[in-house]
Amino acid sequence: MRLSQDTLALIELALREDLGPGDVSAALLPEGLAGSAVFVAKTELVLAGTAAVVEVYRQLDPEVAVSFDGADEGQRLSAGTRFGLVRGPAASLLSGERLALNLLQRLSAIATHTRRAVDAISGTKARILDTRKTGPGLRQLEKHAVRMGGGMNHRFGLFDGVMLKDNHVAAFGSVTKAIETARAHTHHLLQIECEVDDLRQFDEALAAGAGIILLDNMTEADMSEAVRRRDALRPSTLLEASGNMTLPRLPSVAKSGVDFISMGALTHSITASDISLDWSIG
Amino acid sequence: MRLSQDTLALIELALREDLGPGDVSAALLPEGLAGSAVFVAKTELVLAGTAAVVEVYRQLDPEVAVSFDGADEGQRLSAGTRFGLVRGPAASLLSGERLALNLLQRLSAIATHTRRAVDAISGTKARILDTRKTGPGLRQLEKHAVRMGGGMNHRFGLFDGVMLKDNHVAAFGSVTKAIETARAHTHHLLQIECEVDDLRQFDEALAAGAGIILLDNMTEADMSEAVRRRDALRPSTLLEASGNMTLPRLPSVAKSGVDFISMGALTHSITASDISLDWSIG
Amino acid sequence: MRLSQDTLALIELALREDLGPGDVSAALLPEGLAGSAVFVAKTELVLAGTAAVVEVYRQLDPEVAVSFDGADEGQRLSAGTRFGLVRGPAASLLSGERLALNLLQRLSAIATHTRRAVDAISGTKARILDTRKTGPGLRQLEKHAVRMGGGMNHRFGLFDGVMLKDNHVAAFGSVTKAIETARAHTHHLLQIECEVDDLRQFDEALAAGAGIILLDNMTEADMSEAVRRRDALRPSTLLEASGNMTLPRLPSVAKSGVDFISMGALTHSITASDISLDWSIG
Amino acid sequence: MRLSQDTLALIELALREDLGPGDVSAALLPEGLAGSAVFVAKTELVLAGTAAVVEVYRQLDPEVAVSFDGADEGQRLSAGTRFGLVRGPAASLLSGERLALNLLQRLSAIATHTRRAVDAISGTKARILDTRKTGPGLRQLEKHAVRMGGGMNHRFGLFDGVMLKDNHVAAFGSVTKAIETARAHTHHLLQIECEVDDLRQFDEALAAGAGIILLDNMTEADMSEAVRRRDALRPSTLLEASGNMTLPRLPSVAKSGVDFISMGALTHSITASDISLDWSIG
Amino acid sequence: MRLSQDTLALIELALREDLGPGDVSAALLPEGLAGSAVFVAKTELVLAGTAAVVEVYRQLDPEVAVSFDGADEGQRLSAGTRFGLVRGPAASLLSGERLALNLLQRLSAIATHTRRAVDAISGTKARILDTRKTGPGLRQLEKHAVRMGGGMNHRFGLFDGVMLKDNHVAAFGSVTKAIETARAHTHHLLQIECEVDDLRQFDEALAAGAGIILLDNMTEADMSEAVRRRDALRPSTLLEASGNMTLPRLPSVAKSGVDFISMGALTHSITASDISLDWSIG
Amino acid sequence: MRLSQDTLALIELALREDLGPGDVSAALLPEGLAGSAVFVAKTELVLAGTAAVVEVYRQLDPEVAVSFDGADEGQRLSAGTRFGLVRGPAASLLSGERLALNLLQRLSAIATHTRRAVDAISGTKARILDTRKTGPGLRQLEKHAVRMGGGMNHRFGLFDGVMLKDNHVAAFGSVTKAIETARAHTHHLLQIECEVDDLRQFDEALAAGAGIILLDNMTEADMSEAVRRRDALRPSTLLEASGNMTLPRLPSVAKSGVDFISMGALTHSITASDISLDWSIG
Repeated sequence: MRLSQDTLALIELALREDLGPGDVSAALLPEGLAGSAVFVAKTELVLAGTAAVVEVYRQLDPEVAVSFDGADEGQRLSAGTRFGLVRGPAASLLSGERLALNLLQRLSAIATHTRRAVDAISGTKARILDTRKTGPGLRQLEKHAVRMGGGMNHRFGLFDGVMLKDNHVAAFGSVTKAIETARAHTHHLLQIECEVDDLRQFDEALAAGAGIILLDNMTEADMSEAVRRRDALRPSTLLEASGNMTLPRLPSVAKSGVDFISMGALTHSITASDISLDWSIG
Repeated sequence: MRLSQDTLALIELALREDLGPGDVSAALLPEGLAGSAVFVAKTELVLAGTAAVVEVYRQLDPEVAVSFDGADEGQRLSAGTRFGLVRGPAASLLSGERLALNLLQRLSAIATHTRRAVDAISGTKARILDTRKTGPGLRQLEKHAVRMGGGMNHRFGLFDGVMLKDNHVAAFGSVTKAIETARAHTHHLLQIECEVDDLRQFDEALAAGAGIILLDNMTEADMSEAVRRRDALRPSTLLEASGNMTLPRLPSVAKSGVDFISMGALTHSITASDISLDWSIG
Repeated sequence: MRLSQDTLALIELALREDLGPGDVSAALLPEGLAGSAVFVAKTELVLAGTAAVVEVYRQLDPEVAVSFDGADEGQRLSAGTRFGLVRGPAASLLSGERLALNLLQRLSAIATHTRRAVDAISGTKARILDTRKTGPGLRQLEKHAVRMGGGMNHRFGLFDGVMLKDNHVAAFGSVTKAIETARAHTHHLLQIECEVDDLRQFDEALAAGAGIILLDNMTEADMSEAVRRRDALRPSTLLEASGNMTLPRLPSVAKSGVDFISMGALTHSITASDISLDWSIG
Repeated sequence: MRLSQDTLALIELALREDLGPGDVSAALLPEGLAGSAVFVAKTELVLAGTAAVVEVYRQLDPEVAVSFDGADEGQRLSAGTRFGLVRGPAASLLSGERLALNLLQRLSAIATHTRRAVDAISGTKARILDTRKTGPGLRQLEKHAVRMGGGMNHRFGLFDGVMLKDNHVAAFGSVTKAIETARAHTHHLLQIECEVDDLRQFDEALAAGAGIILLDNMTEADMSEAVRRRDALRPSTLLEASGNMTLPRLPSVAKSGVDFISMGALTHSITASDISLDWSIG
Repeated sequence: MRLSQDTLALIELALREDLGPGDVSAALLPEGLAGSAVFVAKTELVLAGTAAVVEVYRQLDPEVAVSFDGADEGQRLSAGTRFGLVRGPAASLLSGERLALNLLQRLSAIATHTRRAVDAISGTKARILDTRKTGPGLRQLEKHAVRMGGGMNHRFGLFDGVMLKDNHVAAFGSVTKAIETARAHTHHLLQIECEVDDLRQFDEALAAGAGIILLDNMTEADMSEAVRRRDALRPSTLLEASGNMTLPRLPSVAKSGVDFISMGALTHSITASDISLDWSIG
Repeated sequence: MRLSQDTLALIELALREDLGPGDVSAALLPEGLAGSAVFVAKTELVLAGTAAVVEVYRQLDPEVAVSFDGADEGQRLSAGTRFGLVRGPAASLLSGERLALNLLQRLSAIATHTRRAVDAISGTKARILDTRKTGPGLRQLEKHAVRMGGGMNHRFGLFDGVMLKDNHVAAFGSVTKAIETARAHTHHLLQIECEVDDLRQFDEALAAGAGIILLDNMTEADMSEAVRRRDALRPSTLLEASGNMTLPRLPSVAKSGVDFISMGALTHSITASDISLDWSIG
């Protein structure tokens, strides 16, 4: 993965935030003292975020060498697994530790959470999607973590896909008018997705030719009915379910036949993966 | 709260990340269309993050007016409370909604979580502290949210307080040597905190004159003993407990007599507060 | 149009480039001297770029007032038309004049050129598209100018639409494999466009289900044949023609029945519109 | 040529504009796939802009190697010439191609156009000058291209040379007053140039001791007369002609005896040089 | 004076450096507390830097009002003079005080020092010049302060005037060759200045047609001789003296007849002007 | 010393300020010309700032090699000492010379001045402190220089230590109230320092438990009395003297028994160390 300029800027900002004019504790260490450290998964997890760790140390001190040989992004690590090696000036290792761990713990948590969701619907054709409910500045990294957990990405931002929500529809007066306006003014490489709350709106969106229809907060029964109508009338239209998509509920939603299930909780509600960095200094 | 340059930069980065070259959905709206919206707390929560919402819209479009009259930072809101008013060009309201909510939901979640921890030890003299396990670039905002939840802040970063961890100690050979070195080379407005793992190390740190001693992963029994020795020998030394400080365990830890309990989970493990933005357009 | 952060940054950069440590000529003017100026179209043109002019002066000196009342973006102005009013400190007016004109002349040239192309195919269903052959940093402004000339935008950049060119196809071994890989790994709001050089490749792309097929450097006869096959087999597939799309050739290309004609020359080959700024000072 | 910080910033901005959160097409390529490519001049041209190409790939991916051995800036290349070699990860090659070509085509176009103008007046003592009518943020690169075409640069911006135009003169009441004020307040390493519209103003500027006099929109006859008076009275004063300096008119202007002819069209009106990048992948 | 983008950036940087994540002392003040303060000149001085003070508070907090009515840049203030008024939120006043004073004390010191030098040579035609020996990032402000003290500016940087020092001359082999090369390759609005160490080099530079000749570390006798030769041979050539130009020596140097005396000490050796800020709070 | 992001930004800003679009003199040199140069201490000095010199050339041109082997930061160099070697492209050496010298001369001046102050009180237990009266953007470098001269640093900025000045005290009504408020709201790793003007205030601050008390503009007699009371009542409280701490006065102040003497003049009043850069080119 090539880190975007925004991701590089976020890491630069996070380093400045933490180091400010200097790490007063690391500055006490004897000059020239070298060290090394390995990451340890304290619980089972799906690994994600190693590129961010590499970048943290690249910006902090090019003399620090970081390698994750044998530990791939997306790999499931059992509790106790030691992985990754960080070597170099001890002061730099210590100064970068917190940010490196903050990123790795958060991104692995996202991958791990996503993997659980994906596994919960295995055997169905539905796919798990992320949302734009990501940490500010972290979108590229978090969407990558979702992929590492087996999920698929939704649009990246407000610019690479049209999403007509209830407020857009209200502004135009009808679902049909909203979709037609979108098709007329949006470049031809972008699909139009329209959010609907009930089957009546669904029928209108289907008829108006939306590329994707978002079934928001519907029951599984209504989702199944929507799938049936879609299959009958416009089989190329894609259906996405969203709204309170908790882990236990995923199987029944997936069985309704929708193509995608989008889950905000993948990125907005996180329990950091327990990863530590074990040092040997000197 | 005056937002720091780093916080302003983070919000600018997050807006760029989400809007890129432009919001293709909002661009469809009729030019000149105005709208307004109110935030709604869908569950009980402690409010934090309103300054971030104001800043999001200030950067996005100065014609948007945001006010939170009657809803104070740190206030407990019951489920269903409507608060805050956002008014202005509908396209701008929609373009900023996601980032505004992402921030408000995260920061209120932190305040709410902190409030629960603080309440759990009410009646003791112990205080709840945050850590540096914050979202990258979000430290100022998240530490503010901790205060809004009734917690206290630990040092901001690596520059405003010395923290001697096991690796620092190892590099110097002993707790005593580490503390002495720190005192000699650190400016006189900074305190020295030293992490200890057991009572033997504790005794050494106490004798060496650490300003604060961090009791890491100790039992409540050992904490109580440490408090007893501190009271006997150096009553001005402050004691901080850390390591797996879960909500149920807080009362027994607080009763040990420590001054501070620091909790990484306040900021690294988050369940976003459920807040929505309800619109009226036109 | 809301100017993107990148556009604001480009204008800031351009002002710094031109003013550096200060305008040594404008600095000679008597302090407090005010002035005003109007833009004059010296030849017929389609107006575009007024928002850029407003931004130039907003950044340079908030005391300068710029208004374009009665002159709309996209409006055709006859030679001699006076439009727009700039008023304020004479030194600031003079310091910003060159950048304001450089932008206005370039963007109006693009709108004017586009308008000619659009008019050349009026009566057909084909639409004129721009490309990514824009001035560095100017993409948002130039794509806006294309719309003001009646054209349509292609994807903005490398991120909001998949375009499989000959080299991508070569890397996968076949058009079919390239399109299938793209569909599997790209989020569902993005269309897949595939470039083809001849009818054999075209058939393969059509069969593989490309959303859009780019007919590159084909004859009008081959284009017509491609349209015929598309209409017969997959009428929802869109066809785009490109490669040496000069003004005289546009009508015959449009008549082939393609949906889009993309023209790099709209933005890479420009004859600046002749616009002057006429001053009254004092 | 050492690229200025502004030029580096422009290229960074242009990459961000085009790549945003990532190149969704290049991301499809098999990881580790390498490739190489050569530039091909499709028509005769004067080469300029290779340093910009090198910088584009240096910023994008340091693993890409770019070399232009045997092709010098300013060299005339015949149609069909293959020059320059780009090697490295195929995804990076593709992601940078468009910006590299946009810059190379534009800068070579400027050099080629300038060369034609310079050749048109060969044998005279007049020299071709550029202006400040350059692409925003591109001034350093475009002025370099002018030199590569055999032209000379005018001042870089508003800070490295005084230019008194009609509005400055109006503000002071007379050419004489304007020149005297400039001389008194400008540091001694900067020359004063004054624009004049007719021979009466010319006489005044000459008498006032302008270092350079700009003959704006004068006839060749008036230019010759101005040269004569200059030779008689102040032979060290330099004369510059400007205003509608088209290629066919250059010889007669040069023969008038002016020292410089400045041409805005060198940079504001461009027909991109036809250069392609031919790939071999794998 | 219009502050350049670089000056604005310097002030932004200096604020970030001083405030970091926040002023922990000012944060203690009661919210809403207002205050006001006046500057007091504790010794006689020449005032400079008020625009920098205005900018510091503008960036810090737009609610702070700063005015310097009745105290002009360049004005001589006697000891005890109260000038300037700063009003607004007390916390903001305190947070910006140090940077405001640091700038005002330094810039007024430069103006005051310059004024002494200028007064020391009053009655001669020589003028006092500054150099590039300025504080990093402060050049625009410091050169302005020099003007406020009655001095004149030398070139701003390496880009707005050619200065051929001994090393440039060595690279070309001779003063003549260096000057000829410079004249051929530098745009016509820039003068060429050549540094010489003795009268032999001086003669060569004079003959080669340097616009300005820098007499470096020469005796007053040699300066007088250089002036004599200049007057005889090329009266339009300007002469600048430099090298250990201390205050007591200035009159004899000025009497030699040189046009300019440049003094590095104006900006590299500074005794801060004693200015305080007296508050009334509440 | 690891340079902070702010220091890197300051050097980048200073290079842009000086070079702008390019060094027009260095550009004249024959391409490929190499050179080398050594620094020479023209007077006795304490060396500081070599890391800044290394960074200047690293940013300017990575092909320039800078080494200071055998010359350590903080080392006393006698007049005439040659130290440091700069080698590489002659044009780059020349373009960076001025900024490199400006920094080295200023920082060595600070180290030298500090060393004199430290030597003046040798044999006492008092230590010399710097202040926040530093050059804008130069704080990290200047505070480092103070350490190299044997001094100690005060807090870095407004964020790493509480300082209650007269205005803070006034806002709270009393020294006691101010200190109590500070202790309640400031994190536990920061000390509270309180400024007092007389012994009455001193007694109050001592009783209220300030960690450090700043004796501002007191006589040596009062300082001695304050020390006596401190020793009697709260021996752990630290005392700092400030206000007109000139070199001659230091011994008597130190003998009063205060722990620290802070001197603004170390950084706000500077006589640049005389250091030159001697070249050999070709």
